[in-house]
Amino acid sequence: MSSNNIQIFDTTLRDGEQVPGCKLNTEQKVIIAKQLDQLGVDVIESGFPVSSPGDFKSVEEISKIVKNATVCGLTRAVENDIKVAAQALKKAKKARIHTGIGTSDSHILHKFKSNKEAIIKRAYEAVKYAKSFVEDVEFYAEDAGRTDNEYLARVCEAAIKAGATVLNIPDTTGYCLPSEYGAKIKYLKENVKGIEKAILSCHCHNDLGLATANSIEGVINGARQIECTINGIGERAGNTALEEVVMVLKQHPYLNLDTNINTQMLYGISQLVSDSMGIYTQPNKAIVGANAFAHSSGIHQDGVIKNRETYEIIDPKDVGVTESAIVLTARSGRAALAYRAKNVGYELTKLQLDEIYASFLTFADKKKEINDNDIHQIIETSNIYQQIISA
Amino acid sequence: MSSNNIQIFDTTLRDGEQVPGCKLNTEQKVIIAKQLDQLGVDVIESGFPVSSPGDFKSVEEISKIVKNATVCGLTRAVENDIKVAAQALKKAKKARIHTGIGTSDSHILHKFKSNKEAIIKRAYEAVKYAKSFVEDVEFYAEDAGRTDNEYLARVCEAAIKAGATVLNIPDTTGYCLPSEYGAKIKYLKENVKGIEKAILSCHCHNDLGLATANSIEGVINGARQIECTINGIGERAGNTALEEVVMVLKQHPYLNLDTNINTQMLYGISQLVSDSMGIYTQPNKAIVGANAFAHSSGIHQDGVIKNRETYEIIDPKDVGVTESAIVLTARSGRAALAYRAKNVGYELTKLQLDEIYASFLTFADKKKEINDNDIHQIIETSNIYQQIISA
Repeated sequence: MSSNNIQIFDTTLRDGEQVPGCKLNTEQKVIIAKQLDQLGVDVIESGFPVSSPGDFKSVEEISKIVKNATVCGLTRAVENDIKVAAQALKKAKKARIHTGIGTSDSHILHKFKSNKEAIIKRAYEAVKYAKSFVEDVEFYAEDAGRTDNEYLARVCEAAIKAGATVLNIPDTTGYCLPSEYGAKIKYLKENVKGIEKAILSCHCHNDLGLATANSIEGVINGARQIECTINGIGERAGNTALEEVVMVLKQHPYLNLDTNINTQMLYGISQLVSDSMGIYTQPNKAIVGANAFAHSSGIHQDGVIKNRETYEIIDPKDVGVTESAIVLTARSGRAALAYRAKNVGYELTKLQLDEIYASFLTFADKKKEINDNDIHQIIETSNIYQQIISA
Repeated sequence: MSSNNIQIFDTTLRDGEQVPGCKLNTEQKVIIAKQLDQLGVDVIESGFPVSSPGDFKSVEEISKIVKNATVCGLTRAVENDIKVAAQALKKAKKARIHTGIGTSDSHILHKFKSNKEAIIKRAYEAVKYAKSFVEDVEFYAEDAGRTDNEYLARVCEAAIKAGATVLNIPDTTGYCLPSEYGAKIKYLKENVKGIEKAILSCHCHNDLGLATANSIEGVINGARQIECTINGIGERAGNTALEEVVMVLKQHPYLNLDTNINTQMLYGISQLVSDSMGIYTQPNKAIVGANAFAHSSGIHQDGVIKNRETYEIIDPKDVGVTESAIVLTARSGRAALAYRAKNVGYELTKLQLDEIYASFLTFADKKKEINDNDIHQIIETSNIYQQIISA
């Protein structure tokens, strides 16, 4: 692993599954885990074993079948959580326990009714205890996004002293601006004693629509793992979308940061997760939405037909989508109409195109989208039809 | 208007409407325009008048009914486009013509088969011609995101010389990283001669999931207008989501940038646009998704019940959502179960809660979400039911 390799920590089956009404059963989780392993994610967070017998079983089954990725289970900084997670992960080729505690004032005062020193002690002890079961222990400082940097650095130092291999810095509430989150990672990278023994991980939420940008700023500033989910699913507004961060890094090679993801599997796995959880992905979802590569306005269609790169920065094939769609609506121009007419068998001259364009627009103003049958109808009822068929 | 006021330019009815299969008719557009006007947007881009007779009519009707906002119409740098737009906007209290041309090498060479000097000339002439109809002319440098800054500055200077009041810097393909887009705006602010006569506008697309972050970096670096759509709808992966940028600014008061938006209308107008266009908003859509304020995991529910701010940075009422939902699933803890049981009439003691929690989990492992009826059933079939009803 080069130092510019960004580890992809997929939490679709844990944080992602925290979508109200979308719980997966063990069979579904195992199918998705197999695909994630093939996709090339480095870590699969497979569940929160202590939370229910069903989730324990899911983590256990996933541990048996994953071939390449590390399998991870979530715990609170509670002995029983950690013991149960270790048990669920026993059969994993590579196992990681993920443990941690809230570190913001809001969490320390309201949730734990505790104090800063006591929290550091609990953090240390939880990691130490997890280390008695597995070598690879990730520590999360929940609500790190709203934790002051100096205290956060001390918590991280305690976790490293106890043996943590990864320090997860979650923006739990999705509050940070990219510049703030980047600065936080930079501060930790520069100020935590012993930081060379662990890697920093970005775990961002999308409450303000900034999760992808925050994760990218995180790795630009020294983090080496991104925690994310397929389609960005998860509690509230969800997590960082795996497909977005992976493609941002791929499309900006000058950042010199890469992942082990086979991007051509992205579209397929997006569909699998969407179907399994019954969560529809909105058509304009970046990278994997139904319209992500569809062009409907005349200006854009004309450009794309001349040269794909005019309006597309990603080749759809790179993410497993077969081709960009040229969709005909009342905003489409002559170039798109000619392109689609050609697809259904009519090579129109410029004059013929002018002749039918007005009736195309009248038709399209009434109908949302013009399909191949409509094109036939428009041409067959026009003055140019006789010319075409006798040509 | 203070210099820290960010103008919200809504393009739901123009760029947003470029969603394949989701064209709106004039009646629908008028209804949405009225709501946008009440929402407090500064500019409503109402259509592309030359594109079809239906769209011309929509712009004309919207111009008649909008009371406060500026009404804007899109054009290419083409005389007839501009003349037709001016005609459609005639009845507007405040009218703006939006004209422009592609400025990246990709657009100049492939789309226009032209050269840099000729493009500057066309930009100047288009703005000049638009000024012969209206005072307020916005110029767009299409694909500015991939245009080199030095040339872009020269194009902007020509547009200002011709009288442009707003310079729109679109990241047409959604390629820029936030730091790149911010640097571009900063460069223009510092290097374009006459920049004090116009404001810079951010128009970002979401192909890599970065539209919101890019727009925010834009205004932090000196832009004073954001172009956006309700729910982030639009061609391909869509535009910047209005609700996201507005709430980012509202939730970060230290940026000292504000908008004129009445945020309590956000949820309602999101629903209106979603219904009118038949585009489902995914449940985890930031701010306006069905789950944006729903908590399902035990750790989060416990925190939110103790203190809303533990996991919520936005008060749902601020965006027109009535209350945060506590959703019961197999990931829920005792606190959530007690909370929801109380809502349906059972005040459970700690012991009673322990007694039914296991059967709740078994039940929840089988079912995706536990509703109020399920809670009744779990309690009525438990050992504690006799205690409760005889209490």
